[in-house]
Amino acid sequence: MATTATPPRLTRSQVEEIVRQVVGERLEGPRAGGPGLIVHASARHAHLCREDLDRLFGPGYELTVDRELHQPGNFAAKETVTLIGPRSRLISNLRILGPLRSRTQIELAFTDAVSLGYEDVPIRLSGDLDGTPGAYVMGPHGVVELGSGVIRAAMHAHMSPDEAAHFGVGKGDVMKLRVGGDAGVTFEKVHVRVDPSYRLEVHMDTDEANACGLRYATEIGLFK
Amino acid sequence: MATTATPPRLTRSQVEEIVRQVVGERLEGPRAGGPGLIVHASARHAHLCREDLDRLFGPGYELTVDRELHQPGNFAAKETVTLIGPRSRLISNLRILGPLRSRTQIELAFTDAVSLGYEDVPIRLSGDLDGTPGAYVMGPHGVVELGSGVIRAAMHAHMSPDEAAHFGVGKGDVMKLRVGGDAGVTFEKVHVRVDPSYRLEVHMDTDEANACGLRYATEIGLFK
Repeated sequence: MATTATPPRLTRSQVEEIVRQVVGERLEGPRAGGPGLIVHASARHAHLCREDLDRLFGPGYELTVDRELHQPGNFAAKETVTLIGPRSRLISNLRILGPLRSRTQIELAFTDAVSLGYEDVPIRLSGDLDGTPGAYVMGPHGVVELGSGVIRAAMHAHMSPDEAAHFGVGKGDVMKLRVGGDAGVTFEKVHVRVDPSYRLEVHMDTDEANACGLRYATEIGLFK
Repeated sequence: MATTATPPRLTRSQVEEIVRQVVGERLEGPRAGGPGLIVHASARHAHLCREDLDRLFGPGYELTVDRELHQPGNFAAKETVTLIGPRSRLISNLRILGPLRSRTQIELAFTDAVSLGYEDVPIRLSGDLDGTPGAYVMGPHGVVELGSGVIRAAMHAHMSPDEAAHFGVGKGDVMKLRVGGDAGVTFEKVHVRVDPSYRLEVHMDTDEANACGLRYATEIGLFK
């Protein structure tokens, strides 16, 4: 038999705390700021569109999976390209990450950008490519001239809707990542990306990883 | 004629505020957290002791000043050496900074250390070299085998005693440096170094500068 009762009045912070706790218990993946939080240093890489893959590797070419990445469906391909910067300096063996995207995008750390001769490469979210510098990309079948598409990727956290609820954040929000240890660095602009297919993971570039000593970090926390 | 009067009772924070104000007015150099704060990205470099300079460049050799640095008496020399890491990889044209020191010290960014084949290079304060990795150093006259001395320099702030008083810090304290802009990074371990000869200046390495986008920073603050 069902019974009804007036629920006790809760403050907003009590409600938040309960939601966090319940959602937290449901999460089986890496946990908020806990030892399971995965922070990945992405080395420079390329995402290609269909048209550019055809031009670089031949019509109808398909990428070969070399290694699955933490985000389901994403992979490092066996294929690489050569990137040629504005002063004819180049980076060989630039890894392609799959799957294909609607627009080609090259992600570099600032150290890479400097060594290629770029004056400036803006920090951008993935896909936000208007007004970014271009490059030449060379593959075994041909060369593509990109008018734009070279970025430093803004630091970002992939998470599922449950994980976002646990942190109390939503798509487009910005969180902080603190990396303790000998360096002790707080990154203030970790952009939240939410999708049901995502698993909790923070992506930074190699400059950021080197600056904060990510490899030797003794504590890592992600917070609002 | 002298007069005496009971001074008004001041709280500790009022006293601090007055001291800060007075000291602030006396400072003619770059100011605390203000637009004048100089943050310098130190590229990899070597400090040499007399004995090693003799072995690398010949007995009694004297360094040639190429460029004065911000700290009085310090300079980038015209002379460079070749650094050979643990896996026979090398970095050419490693700049020597003068004046000579009591012990040879090589300062690398982590990116440099990785490219040289080091597994780990510890973050250390200048001069704290026990237990650090070694290297071979090659000059035009000879080669030196260092048993230790390769470090990543801990981020640090040079300041005069007046400037230290202005910030309310002393030698050995640790401050924070916040670099705003597109990245937005706070470095938590800026070691305070105080000497009457110093001028206010923060030193970071190139990894740290690249990670926080130092070149394009819109606001920089040094604080306790």
